[in-house]
Amino acid sequence: MKNDKRELILNAAQELMCKIPDKEISVNLIARTAGIAKGSIYYYFESKDEILDAVVEKCYKNAIHEFFRELNSEESALNKIKLLFQSMLKSEFSNNQQNFILTLHLHEDLLLHNKLKRIAVQEISPILTALLQQGCNEGSIQTNYPKESAEMIIAILAFFLDNTFFPSDNISMNHKLRTLAYSLEMFLNAEKGSFDFLWESDETLKEEI
Amino acid sequence: MKNDKRELILNAAQELMCKIPDKEISVNLIARTAGIAKGSIYYYFESKDEILDAVVEKCYKNAIHEFFRELNSEESALNKIKLLFQSMLKSEFSNNQQNFILTLHLHEDLLLHNKLKRIAVQEISPILTALLQQGCNEGSIQTNYPKESAEMIIAILAFFLDNTFFPSDNISMNHKLRTLAYSLEMFLNAEKGSFDFLWESDETLKEEI
Repeated sequence: MKNDKRELILNAAQELMCKIPDKEISVNLIARTAGIAKGSIYYYFESKDEILDAVVEKCYKNAIHEFFRELNSEESALNKIKLLFQSMLKSEFSNNQQNFILTLHLHEDLLLHNKLKRIAVQEISPILTALLQQGCNEGSIQTNYPKESAEMIIAILAFFLDNTFFPSDNISMNHKLRTLAYSLEMFLNAEKGSFDFLWESDETLKEEI
Repeated sequence: MKNDKRELILNAAQELMCKIPDKEISVNLIARTAGIAKGSIYYYFESKDEILDAVVEKCYKNAIHEFFRELNSEESALNKIKLLFQSMLKSEFSNNQQNFILTLHLHEDLLLHNKLKRIAVQEISPILTALLQQGCNEGSIQTNYPKESAEMIIAILAFFLDNTFFPSDNISMNHKLRTLAYSLEMFLNAEKGSFDFLWESDETLKEEI
Protein backbone atom coordinates (compact mmCIF):
# COMPACT_ATOMS: atom_id res chain seq x y z
CA MET A 1 0.00 0.00 0.00
CA LYS A 2 2.78 2.39 0.97
CA ASN A 3 4.77 1.44 -2.10
CA ASP A 4 1.70 1.97 -4.27
CA LYS A 5 1.55 5.59 -3.22
CA ARG A 6 5.27 6.04 -3.83
CA GLU A 7 4.74 4.63 -7.32
CA LEU A 8 1.81 7.00 -7.89
CA ILE A 9 4.05 9.94 -7.04
CA LEU A 10 6.88 8.74 -9.27
CA ASN A 11 4.52 8.05 -12.17
CA ALA A 12 2.96 11.48 -11.90
CA ALA A 13 6.38 13.14 -11.80
CA GLN A 14 7.55 11.08 -14.76
CA GLU A 15 4.47 12.10 -16.76
CA LEU A 16 5.18 15.76 -15.97
CA MET A 17 8.90 15.48 -16.77
CA CYS A 18 8.03 14.33 -20.29
CA LYS A 19 5.77 17.32 -20.85
CA ILE A 20 7.24 20.37 -19.14
CA PRO A 21 10.69 21.60 -18.00
CA ASP A 22 11.79 20.57 -14.50
CA LYS A 23 11.71 24.12 -13.22
CA GLU A 24 7.96 24.32 -13.90
CA ILE A 25 7.30 21.22 -11.83
CA SER A 26 6.36 21.72 -8.18
CA VAL A 27 5.46 19.35 -5.36
CA ASN A 28 1.97 20.86 -5.60
CA LEU A 29 1.67 19.99 -9.27
CA ILE A 30 2.97 16.46 -8.68
CA ALA A 31 0.42 15.98 -5.89
CA ARG A 32 -2.42 17.21 -8.12
CA THR A 33 -1.32 15.02 -11.03
CA ALA A 34 -1.03 11.98 -8.74
CA GLY A 35 -4.38 12.79 -7.15
CA ILE A 36 -3.07 12.75 -3.60
CA ALA A 37 -2.59 15.31 -0.82
CA LYS A 38 0.58 17.37 -0.94
CA GLY A 39 1.36 16.56 2.68
CA SER A 40 1.56 12.84 2.05
CA ILE A 41 4.27 13.36 -0.57
CA TYR A 42 6.62 14.49 2.18
CA TYR A 43 6.13 11.15 3.85
CA TYR A 44 8.05 9.60 0.94
CA PHE A 45 10.29 12.36 -0.34
CA GLU A 46 12.00 15.35 1.21
CA SER A 47 11.88 17.62 -1.80
CA LYS A 48 10.90 17.97 -5.43
CA ASP A 49 14.53 17.31 -6.43
CA GLU A 50 14.51 14.03 -4.55
CA ILE A 51 11.42 12.98 -6.50
CA LEU A 52 12.92 13.92 -9.87
CA ASP A 53 16.16 12.09 -9.02
CA ALA A 54 14.17 9.00 -8.05
CA VAL A 55 12.34 9.15 -11.40
CA VAL A 56 15.62 9.33 -13.31
CA GLU A 57 17.01 6.41 -11.29
CA LYS A 58 13.89 4.34 -11.91
CA CYS A 59 13.93 5.10 -15.64
CA TYR A 60 17.56 4.13 -15.78
CA LYS A 61 17.07 0.77 -14.08
CA ASN A 62 13.98 0.02 -16.17
CA ALA A 63 15.72 0.97 -19.39
CA ILE A 64 18.63 -1.38 -18.63
CA HIS A 65 16.39 -4.30 -17.80
CA GLU A 66 14.01 -3.69 -20.70
CA PHE A 67 16.97 -3.67 -23.02
CA PHE A 68 18.04 -7.11 -21.87
CA ARG A 69 14.56 -8.56 -21.94
CA GLU A 70 14.37 -7.53 -25.57
CA LEU A 71 17.63 -9.28 -26.47
CA ASN A 72 17.00 -12.36 -28.57
CA SER A 73 17.84 -15.28 -26.32
CA GLU A 74 18.94 -17.35 -29.33
CA GLU A 75 21.74 -14.89 -30.06
CA SER A 76 25.37 -15.87 -29.41
CA ALA A 77 27.11 -14.46 -26.32
CA LEU A 78 29.48 -12.37 -28.46
CA ASN A 79 26.56 -10.77 -30.30
CA LYS A 80 24.79 -9.96 -27.07
CA ILE A 81 27.99 -8.52 -25.62
CA LYS A 82 28.32 -6.37 -28.72
CA LEU A 83 24.79 -5.00 -28.30
CA LEU A 84 25.45 -4.38 -24.61
CA PHE A 85 28.69 -2.47 -25.23
CA GLN A 86 27.17 -0.40 -28.01
CA SER A 87 24.28 0.57 -25.78
CA MET A 88 26.59 1.46 -22.91
CA LEU A 89 28.74 3.61 -25.18
CA LYS A 90 25.71 5.49 -26.44
CA SER A 91 24.08 5.52 -22.96
CA GLU A 92 20.99 4.38 -24.82
CA PHE A 93 19.08 1.43 -23.58
CA SER A 94 15.76 2.07 -25.26
CA ASN A 95 13.93 4.61 -27.34
CA ASN A 96 10.88 5.36 -25.32
CA GLN A 97 9.73 7.86 -22.75
CA GLN A 98 12.30 6.61 -20.25
CA ASN A 99 15.09 7.36 -22.64
CA PHE A 100 13.79 10.84 -23.24
CA ILE A 101 14.06 11.62 -19.54
CA LEU A 102 17.49 10.03 -19.28
CA THR A 103 18.85 12.00 -22.22
CA LEU A 104 17.67 15.19 -20.62
CA HIS A 105 19.14 14.51 -17.19
CA LEU A 106 22.12 12.24 -17.55
CA HIS A 107 24.82 14.81 -18.12
CA GLU A 108 23.42 17.69 -16.17
CA ASP A 109 24.21 16.96 -12.62
CA LEU A 110 27.49 15.54 -11.34
CA LEU A 111 26.08 13.90 -8.24
CA LEU A 112 23.29 12.28 -10.22
CA HIS A 113 25.80 11.24 -12.86
CA ASN A 114 27.80 9.39 -10.21
CA LYS A 115 24.69 7.82 -8.77
CA LEU A 116 23.59 6.53 -12.16
CA LYS A 117 27.06 5.23 -12.82
CA ARG A 118 26.83 3.24 -9.61
CA ILE A 119 23.45 1.84 -10.70
CA ALA A 120 24.75 0.97 -14.17
CA VAL A 121 27.72 -0.80 -12.67
CA GLN A 122 25.59 -2.76 -10.22
CA GLU A 123 22.83 -3.69 -12.66
CA ILE A 124 24.96 -4.46 -15.69
CA SER A 125 27.79 -6.42 -14.01
CA PRO A 126 25.70 -9.52 -13.25
CA ILE A 127 24.26 -9.43 -16.78
CA LEU A 128 27.74 -9.32 -18.32
CA THR A 129 28.90 -12.08 -15.94
CA ALA A 130 26.16 -14.32 -17.32
CA LEU A 131 27.10 -13.42 -20.91
CA LEU A 132 30.77 -14.23 -20.25
CA GLN A 133 29.72 -17.60 -18.81
CA GLN A 134 27.58 -18.23 -21.89
CA GLY A 135 30.57 -17.29 -24.07
CA CYS A 136 32.79 -19.75 -22.19
CA ASN A 137 30.21 -22.50 -22.76
CA GLU A 138 30.02 -21.64 -26.45
CA GLY A 139 33.82 -21.61 -26.67
CA SER A 140 34.04 -18.09 -28.07
CA ILE A 141 35.85 -16.71 -25.02
CA GLN A 142 37.82 -18.03 -22.04
CA THR A 143 38.04 -16.70 -18.53
CA ASN A 144 38.53 -18.29 -15.13
CA TYR A 145 36.86 -15.49 -13.22
CA PRO A 146 33.76 -14.37 -15.14
CA LYS A 147 32.44 -12.21 -12.30
CA GLU A 148 35.69 -10.33 -11.75
CA SER A 149 36.32 -10.05 -15.49
CA ALA A 150 32.84 -8.63 -16.04
CA GLU A 151 33.36 -6.06 -13.29
CA MET A 152 36.69 -5.03 -14.71
CA ILE A 153 35.23 -4.59 -18.18
CA ILE A 154 32.31 -2.56 -16.83
CA ALA A 155 34.75 -0.35 -14.88
CA ILE A 156 36.65 0.28 -18.09
CA LEU A 157 33.54 1.07 -20.11
CA ALA A 158 32.05 3.26 -17.40
CA PHE A 159 35.15 5.24 -16.40
CA PHE A 160 37.95 4.95 -18.93
CA LEU A 161 35.59 6.16 -21.65
CA ASP A 162 34.07 8.88 -19.43
CA ASN A 163 35.17 12.26 -20.69
CA THR A 164 34.71 13.86 -17.28
CA PHE A 165 37.42 11.59 -15.85
CA PHE A 166 39.69 11.29 -18.86
CA PRO A 167 39.12 14.15 -21.28
CA SER A 168 39.59 12.95 -24.88
CA ASP A 169 39.18 14.49 -28.28
CA ASN A 170 37.84 12.36 -31.13
CA ILE A 171 41.21 11.01 -32.20
CA SER A 172 42.20 10.06 -28.68
CA MET A 173 38.77 8.45 -28.17
CA ASN A 174 39.40 6.31 -31.22
CA HIS A 175 42.78 5.23 -29.81
CA LYS A 176 41.03 4.43 -26.57
CA LEU A 177 38.43 2.28 -28.30
CA ARG A 178 41.14 0.43 -30.25
CA THR A 179 43.15 -0.09 -27.08
CA LEU A 180 40.02 -1.44 -25.43
CA ALA A 181 39.12 -3.75 -28.34
CA TYR A 182 42.66 -5.12 -28.43
CA SER A 183 42.85 -5.71 -24.69
CA LEU A 184 39.43 -7.37 -24.49
CA GLU A 185 40.39 -9.71 -27.30
CA MET A 186 43.53 -10.79 -25.44
CA PHE A 187 42.04 -10.74 -22.01
CA LEU A 188 39.03 -12.86 -22.94
CA ASN A 189 41.06 -15.06 -25.28
CA ALA A 190 38.65 -14.27 -28.10
CA GLU A 191 39.18 -14.58 -31.84
CA LYS A 192 41.08 -11.72 -33.46
CA GLY A 193 38.73 -8.91 -34.40
CA SER A 194 35.95 -9.97 -32.01
CA PHE A 195 35.71 -6.50 -30.51
CA ASP A 196 36.65 -4.39 -33.50
CA PHE A 197 33.05 -3.21 -33.68
CA LEU A 198 34.02 -0.90 -30.83
CA TRP A 199 35.93 1.40 -33.12
CA GLU A 200 35.17 0.24 -36.66
CA SER A 201 31.51 1.04 -36.34
CA ASP A 202 32.14 4.62 -35.46
CA GLU A 203 32.18 6.33 -38.84
CA THR A 204 32.50 9.80 -37.37
CA LEU A 205 35.74 8.81 -35.70
CA LYS A 206 37.09 7.20 -38.86
CA GLU A 207 36.56 10.37 -40.83
CA GLU A 208 38.57 12.33 -38.30
CA ILE A 209 41.63 10.15 -38.77
CA MET B 1 50.05 38.54 -4.06
CA LYS B 2 46.49 37.26 -4.15
CA ASN B 3 47.69 33.68 -4.36
CA ASP B 4 49.99 34.29 -1.39
CA LYS B 5 47.00 35.08 0.79
CA ARG B 6 45.13 32.04 -0.45
CA GLU B 7 48.18 29.96 0.50
CA LEU B 8 48.29 31.59 3.94
CA ILE B 9 44.69 30.57 4.52
CA LEU B 10 45.27 27.01 3.33
CA ASN B 11 48.42 26.63 5.43
CA ALA B 12 46.66 27.88 8.54
CA ALA B 13 43.74 25.51 7.96
CA GLN B 14 46.13 22.62 7.33
CA GLU B 15 47.97 23.35 10.57
CA LEU B 16 44.66 23.35 12.46
CA MET B 17 43.42 20.18 10.79
CA CYS B 18 46.44 18.32 12.12
CA LYS B 19 45.79 19.47 15.67
CA ILE B 20 42.05 19.60 16.27
CA PRO B 21 38.90 17.95 14.89
CA ASP B 22 37.25 19.67 11.90
CA LYS B 23 34.17 20.57 13.88
CA GLU B 24 36.25 22.74 16.23
CA ILE B 25 37.67 24.72 13.31
CA SER B 26 35.91 27.95 12.36
CA VAL B 27 36.56 30.63 9.74
CA ASN B 28 37.37 32.89 12.69
CA LEU B 29 40.03 30.54 13.99
CA ILE B 30 41.52 30.07 10.54
CA ALA B 31 41.70 33.87 10.12
CA ARG B 32 43.40 34.28 13.51
CA THR B 33 45.89 31.49 12.79
CA ALA B 34 46.67 32.95 9.36
CA GLY B 35 46.96 36.43 10.86
CA ILE B 36 44.51 37.98 8.43
CA ALA B 37 41.06 39.58 8.67
CA LYS B 38 38.09 37.20 8.62
CA GLY B 39 36.40 39.23 5.89
CA SER B 40 39.23 38.73 3.44
CA ILE B 41 38.88 34.95 3.73
CA TYR B 42 35.49 35.22 2.04
CA TYR B 43 37.21 36.79 -0.91
CA TYR B 44 38.82 33.41 -1.58
CA PHE B 45 36.43 30.86 -0.11
CA GLU B 46 32.69 30.70 0.42
CA SER B 47 32.73 28.63 3.58
CA LYS B 48 34.84 26.74 6.08
CA ASP B 49 33.99 23.50 4.29
CA GLU B 50 35.31 24.88 1.03
CA ILE B 51 38.61 25.69 2.77
CA LEU B 52 38.93 22.25 4.32
CA ASP B 53 38.15 20.58 0.99
CA ALA B 54 40.79 22.71 -0.70
CA VAL B 55 43.33 21.63 1.94
CA VAL B 56 42.53 17.96 1.36
CA GLU B 57 42.82 18.45 -2.41
CA LYS B 58 46.13 20.23 -2.03
CA CYS B 59 47.51 17.55 0.30
CA TYR B 60 46.44 14.90 -2.13
CA LYS B 61 48.14 16.51 -5.12
CA ASN B 62 51.28 17.21 -3.10
CA ALA B 63 51.41 13.69 -1.73
CA ILE B 64 51.19 12.22 -5.24
CA HIS B 65 53.93 14.43 -6.60
CA GLU B 66 56.18 14.04 -3.56
CA PHE B 67 55.86 10.30 -3.92
CA PHE B 68 57.13 10.45 -7.48
CA ARG B 69 59.93 12.86 -6.75
CA GLU B 70 61.17 10.40 -4.17
CA LEU B 71 61.22 7.51 -6.63
CA ASN B 72 64.77 6.52 -7.50
CA SER B 73 65.25 7.59 -11.09
CA GLU B 74 67.70 4.72 -11.64
CA GLU B 75 64.98 2.18 -10.98
CA SER B 76 63.52 0.11 -13.84
CA ALA B 77 60.09 1.07 -15.19
CA LEU B 78 58.53 -2.15 -13.89
CA ASN B 79 59.80 -1.47 -10.37
CA LYS B 80 58.45 2.07 -10.42
CA ILE B 81 55.12 0.82 -11.74
CA LYS B 82 55.05 -1.67 -8.87
CA LEU B 83 55.62 1.08 -6.31
CA LEU B 84 52.96 3.23 -7.97
CA PHE B 85 50.34 0.47 -7.97
CA GLN B 86 51.06 -0.49 -4.37
CA SER B 87 50.68 3.11 -3.27
CA MET B 88 47.44 3.52 -5.18
CA LEU B 89 46.03 0.34 -3.68
CA LYS B 90 46.87 1.53 -0.19
CA SER B 91 45.86 5.14 -1.01
CA GLU B 92 49.14 6.03 0.64
CA PHE B 93 51.53 8.34 -1.08
CA SER B 94 53.61 9.47 1.85
CA ASN B 95 53.84 9.26 5.60
CA ASN B 96 53.80 12.84 6.69
CA GLN B 97 51.31 15.42 7.83
CA GLN B 98 49.63 15.39 4.44
CA ASN B 99 48.94 11.75 4.72
CA PHE B 100 47.47 12.18 8.18
CA ILE B 101 44.90 14.60 6.81
CA LEU B 102 44.16 12.40 3.82
CA THR B 103 43.62 9.32 5.96
CA LEU B 104 41.16 11.24 8.07
CA HIS B 105 39.14 12.63 5.18
CA LEU B 106 39.42 10.29 2.25
CA HIS B 107 36.59 7.91 2.97
CA GLU B 108 34.25 10.23 4.79
CA ASP B 109 32.52 12.17 2.15
CA LEU B 110 31.25 10.80 -1.14
CA LEU B 111 31.51 14.05 -3.07
CA LEU B 112 35.06 14.62 -1.86
CA HIS B 113 35.88 10.99 -2.60
CA ASN B 114 34.79 11.52 -6.22
CA LYS B 115 36.69 14.76 -6.47
CA LEU B 116 39.90 13.14 -5.20
CA LYS B 117 39.40 10.27 -7.58
CA ARG B 118 39.25 12.76 -10.42
CA ILE B 119 42.48 14.37 -9.18
CA ALA B 120 44.23 11.03 -8.80
CA VAL B 121 43.22 10.04 -12.30
CA GLN B 122 44.38 13.32 -13.79
CA GLU B 123 47.67 13.54 -11.88
CA ILE B 124 48.69 9.91 -12.07
CA SER B 125 47.78 9.16 -15.70
CA PRO B 126 50.62 11.25 -17.23
CA ILE B 127 53.08 9.75 -14.73
CA LEU B 128 52.07 6.21 -15.68
CA THR B 129 52.19 7.16 -19.38
CA ALA B 130 55.84 8.15 -18.92
CA LEU B 131 56.58 4.91 -17.04
CA LEU B 132 55.00 2.83 -19.81
CA GLN B 133 57.13 4.65 -22.36
CA GLN B 134 60.22 3.97 -20.25
CA GLY B 135 59.18 0.30 -20.05
CA CYS B 136 58.82 0.15 -23.84
CA ASN B 137 62.32 1.61 -24.23
CA GLU B 138 63.71 -0.90 -21.76
CA GLY B 139 61.90 -3.74 -23.58
CA SER B 140 60.06 -4.96 -20.49
CA ILE B 141 56.62 -4.08 -21.89
CA GLN B 142 55.04 -3.31 -25.25
CA THR B 143 52.20 -0.99 -26.11
CA ASN B 144 51.32 1.13 -29.13
CA TYR B 145 49.22 3.60 -27.19
CA PRO B 146 50.98 4.37 -23.87
CA LYS B 147 48.65 7.28 -23.02
CA GLU B 148 45.45 5.34 -23.61
CA SER B 149 46.86 2.24 -21.93
CA ALA B 150 47.88 4.25 -18.88
CA GLU B 151 44.41 5.77 -18.61
CA MET B 152 42.77 2.41 -18.92
CA ILE B 153 44.96 0.95 -16.19
CA ILE B 154 44.29 3.91 -13.90
CA ALA B 155 40.55 3.54 -14.51
CA ILE B 156 40.80 -0.11 -13.50
CA LEU B 157 42.83 0.61 -10.37
CA ALA B 158 40.65 3.53 -9.32
CA PHE B 159 37.21 2.03 -9.99
CA PHE B 160 37.29 -1.73 -10.43
CA LEU B 161 39.02 -2.04 -7.05
CA ASP B 162 36.75 0.54 -5.38
CA ASN B 163 34.46 -1.21 -2.94
CA THR B 164 31.83 1.50 -3.19
CA PHE B 165 31.35 0.70 -6.88
CA PHE B 166 31.96 -3.05 -6.82
CA PRO B 167 31.48 -4.44 -3.32
CA SER B 168 33.92 -7.33 -2.70
CA ASP B 169 34.76 -9.53 0.23
CA ASN B 170 38.39 -10.58 0.76
CA ILE B 171 38.20 -13.66 -1.43
CA SER B 172 36.58 -11.80 -4.29
CA MET B 173 39.16 -9.00 -3.91
CA ASN B 174 41.91 -11.57 -4.31
CA HIS B 175 40.25 -12.90 -7.47
CA LYS B 176 40.05 -9.32 -8.71
CA LEU B 177 43.73 -8.70 -8.08
CA ARG B 178 44.68 -11.94 -9.85
CA THR B 179 42.42 -11.07 -12.77
CA LEU B 180 44.07 -7.66 -12.93
CA ALA B 181 47.63 -9.05 -12.72
CA TYR B 182 46.88 -11.57 -15.46
CA SER B 183 45.27 -9.03 -17.76
CA LEU B 184 48.03 -6.43 -17.30
CA GLU B 185 50.63 -9.05 -18.13
CA MET B 186 48.87 -9.91 -21.37
CA PHE B 187 47.81 -6.42 -22.21
CA LEU B 188 51.29 -4.93 -21.76
CA ASN B 189 53.00 -7.95 -23.25
CA ALA B 190 55.11 -8.30 -20.09
CA GLU B 191 56.97 -11.34 -18.81
CA LYS B 192 54.83 -13.89 -16.97
CA GLY B 193 54.52 -12.98 -13.30
CA SER B 194 55.44 -9.31 -13.78
CA PHE B 195 52.36 -8.14 -11.91
CA ASP B 196 51.94 -10.99 -9.44
CA PHE B 197 53.00 -8.61 -6.67
CA LEU B 198 49.44 -7.31 -6.89
CA TRP B 199 48.01 -10.35 -5.16
CA GLU B 200 51.01 -12.35 -3.89
CA SER B 201 52.11 -9.61 -1.56
CA ASP B 202 48.81 -9.52 0.22
CA GLU B 203 49.34 -12.02 3.03
CA THR B 204 45.99 -11.33 4.65
CA LEU B 205 44.24 -12.33 1.48
CA LYS B 206 46.32 -15.45 1.05
CA GLU B 207 45.41 -16.67 4.50
CA GLU B 208 41.73 -16.35 3.65
CA ILE B 209 41.99 -18.71 0.72
